[in-house]
Amino acid sequence: MLLTFETALGMLAGTLTTIAFLPQVIRTWRTRSTADISLVMFLVLCSGVLLWLIYGLLRGDWPVIISNAVTILLAGTILFFKLRHG
Amino acid sequence: MLLTFETALGMLAGTLTTIAFLPQVIRTWRTRSTADISLVMFLVLCSGVLLWLIYGLLRGDWPVIISNAVTILLAGTILFFKLRHG
Repeated sequence: MLLTFETALGMLAGTLTTIAFLPQVIRTWRTRSTADISLVMFLVLCSGVLLWLIYGLLRGDWPVIISNAVTILLAGTILFFKLRHG
Repeated sequence: MLLTFETALGMLAGTLTTIAFLPQVIRTWRTRSTADISLVMFLVLCSGVLLWLIYGLLRGDWPVIISNAVTILLAGTILFFKLRHG
């Protein structure tokens, strides 16, 4: 991964969109409560993020790969609690 | 924009991650109520999506451009109501 201006911009973009998602993950991790979270919405989101990850891998696009790999871990954590605790 | 397998996959990914965001937009549009929405989170999200849009433009990556252009309209709508109605 060459650190060009483009890559740095992509990594910053990925950091910001991932950070925006963190409060929900922290809240869910702490409370283990997911009653107000829509299962369908999270299944759609996780599918989308997984496809972005594959798209990034096909294009060798590191900011897309790294951002979506981290996001799928975070969204997957919420989905896990949703499926386990309802 | 050439419709390769890669582009189709990227467009599907973008459609799914955008759809996951729609229920919040529809709810905010209907209720005009944004008291439970974090302003800081939305400012961070909108900044991130804007940077993804610039990144997509720099790379000529149509799925990234289109998805983030739509998302910034949706997230921007919520941000507008948040700033206007609190």
